[in-house]
Formats: sequence, structure tokens, C-alpha cells
Amino acid sequence: MAESMSLLSGAGSCPCWRVMLTLEEKNLQGYRHKLISFEKNEHKSQEVLELNPRGQVPVFKYGDIVLNQSAAACLYLENQFKSQGTKLIPDDPAKQAMMYQRMIEGLGLTEKLNWVVHYEFLVPEGERHEAAQQRHRDALTTELKLWEGYFENVAEGSYLAGPFSLADVVGFPNAAYAFHFGLSPERYPKMAKYYNLLKDRPSIKATWPPKYLESGQGLKDF
Amino acid sequence: MAESMSLLSGAGSCPCWRVMLTLEEKNLQGYRHKLISFEKNEHKSQEVLELNPRGQVPVFKYGDIVLNQSAAACLYLENQFKSQGTKLIPDDPAKQAMMYQRMIEGLGLTEKLNWVVHYEFLVPEGERHEAAQQRHRDALTTELKLWEGYFENVAEGSYLAGPFSLADVVGFPNAAYAFHFGLSPERYPKMAKYYNLLKDRPSIKATWPPKYLESGQGLKDF
Repeated sequence: MAESMSLLSGAGSCPCWRVMLTLEEKNLQGYRHKLISFEKNEHKSQEVLELNPRGQVPVFKYGDIVLNQSAAACLYLENQFKSQGTKLIPDDPAKQAMMYQRMIEGLGLTEKLNWVVHYEFLVPEGERHEAAQQRHRDALTTELKLWEGYFENVAEGSYLAGPFSLADVVGFPNAAYAFHFGLSPERYPKMAKYYNLLKDRPSIKATWPPKYLESGQGLKDF
Repeated sequence: MAESMSLLSGAGSCPCWRVMLTLEEKNLQGYRHKLISFEKNEHKSQEVLELNPRGQVPVFKYGDIVLNQSAAACLYLENQFKSQGTKLIPDDPAKQAMMYQRMIEGLGLTEKLNWVVHYEFLVPEGERHEAAQQRHRDALTTELKLWEGYFENVAEGSYLAGPFSLADVVGFPNAAYAFHFGLSPERYPKMAKYYNLLKDRPSIKATWPPKYLESGQGLKDF
């Protein structure tokens, strides 16, 4: 199965990590994986543009099917390989609702993290404003406090929506990204607990972004 | 079933419309529906904040379950009421992949539309830049051209991913929003065809935003 799958991804990107995690959890190892370099602008290469005219990764291909939105790829893979590997969408109605809710909310947290970490990359020099930057920082703080509540009851085997699910496929890369860029584990102890509970999970270790071995600075005063 | 459901929504909001459409398509009429006014800042009222600390709508409640992300609510409702009303996630693998892809892409189109239509609302006066506004306009044009391609083969009964699906639950409100705000149907004839094929669908007529009866101006030169 996995032999007819391929993934173009960029190191350290939360959306790419989501798809890699899902493939691991569904026992779909052995797909063709190509890491592209954002620094060398390879996401705007012909190879990517042919499959995704927006010039973004991840791009997941399975036979003739192309999925270039990470949430779409994750939902699709879970639905196509339901009985294989980890069940990533719970059957229990309350847990399922929580799973969809946290999964989609997680996409928003990634954006809020990016706005703070990459403000200077996202906004051209002449258009930057301290007030705007401060608003992004305040919005991220509000959001992180909300998530701190979501992590309140995490424990071994019970994560954002019960057993490991698509909520964590989105949620864990966010937590890892935040701590990698310097978020204070003392200030966000529940997120830190969640991170520590999951960081050695085999799917996560197998897909850990090489660049996360050094630490970043973008959230060092958070 | 629908008696234990309630929805807080704001008129003309694409995310709210998605949930209303899904409820109609799943034959879940009869839920308690409260329209809140953005103009009166009711999305920041206690009633909303208690269910959604971000102060945003839609907020969908079903017994003790609260879903305040429209995509999460739509996915949840389809999964809980699979055999009731319209089947909104196709079984066929290629159509299902397309459905997830267009559904999630559609969330991005809504954002790009909002950046152009509501730029002055989203960016405080002292921080507005013509260059930024132009970038948003260019990004929207690029995106709309991409969608024009997605609408290439629409026909009666065959929409963004085959029969009416969650891709259209997200896609149709985007098209209606764009034309309401003045997008030129001559310049986007395939999107216009899609719009005309679906505008009289019962679920869509039943949920048509009252304020769309007059037309807006934000995209009048698009």
C-alpha cells in the first residue's frame, strides 16, 4: 500500500509533521519521502507547484490522489485505513466531538504560533508595527492559556480527546513547536506534561524534525 | 433529536452558514436557533463567551457537547447521522479525497475573502498599507482563479466532489459570499454556474442569510 504513497514535506513544519504522524500511526511506513528545504525555496519548485499550485507543503500523493491540505490528508488516511494501526477517530460520541473540536482548533493555534515566531518573515519591513506584533503576542498568550486548560486532565493513555487521536496528530506538533521555540514549560506546566507524556511515543520519535534538536528563540519570553 | 440541539449564529457568516446547511441536509430541522448581531457585539456577550471563550460564532450545542468550530461541527454531524438525510462524505475513495481536500481548502478561501472584504475592520487605521491591501487582493485573485478551475466540470448533481457533500457545505457559502459582495459572474463564469446550480437547493434556500437580499460592495471591482 505505502509503496504507492509519497510525501513532500519541509523540516519542522507542523502541517507536514501531522501527515507523517498519521502515516506512522496507520502503519503506512515505507512511503517515498522527500524533504524539501524552505531556505532554498524548494516549496516553490516545479516539483511542488505541479502538485500544489500554492507552492506549499505537505503534498501527499497516493496513486492518482493528491492531498495538499494536511487536515484533509489526515482525515482521508484515517477513513481509508480505519482498521489498520491506531484508531484515530474515536467512536464514542462525546470523545469524537472533542476530537474534531480540538483537531480544528489546533489548526488555529499553529497559525497563532506562526504569527509570533515568523512575524518578520510574514510582514514586509515597511509594514511592521509594534502594536500589531503585540496584538499577535497577546492573542497567542490568550490561546495558550485556553490550551493549558485543555491539557488539564492529560494522563498516560488519555490525551486531548482520550486515547491518541487526530486531535493529538495536530496538537502534539503544536506543543513541540512551541517548546522548541522557547515557550516556558514552567509557565505552561500542563502543556509540558502533555509533551512529556507523548514525546517518546514511537510514531513521534520516528518523525521528530531533525532541526528540533537545537532550540529556537522566537518564543523565548513566553 | 434536533430538540436537544441549539445554534448561535451570526447573519451572513460563512462558518455559521456551513453548520446550518449541514443541519438541514441531515434533516435536523427544529433545533433552537438564535441569531446574534455582530453590529451589537453580541458575539462577545456572556451567552456566547460561556460556550466559546474566543467570542466567536457559530456555537453548536447538542446535549452536553459543544462545538464552536464550524468544520468540527459539520464533520461530527455527518459522522453521527450517517444514514439520515444527505450522505455528505462520499464512500468512493477518489471522491472522498476530493471532498476532504476541497472542504479544507474552502476554509482558506473564506479567510482570503474576509481579508479583502473586511480589511479595514481587521486592521487598525494607523497600520493599514496599500501594499498589504494589494497583496491580499492579489492572493484572492490567484485563489479565485484556482477555484474557477475546480468548478470546471460542475453539472446538475455533480459539484465540488461529486454529489452534494461537505465540500459544498463549505464551498457554496464562499461562492454566495463572493457574489453578494460584488464578484463579477462574467469574470468567474464557472463559479457562477456552480452558484446557479445550487442556489435553489432546499437546504440552501431554507438557510439563505437575510442580509444577502441586498448586495454588498467589497468585491465590486473583482
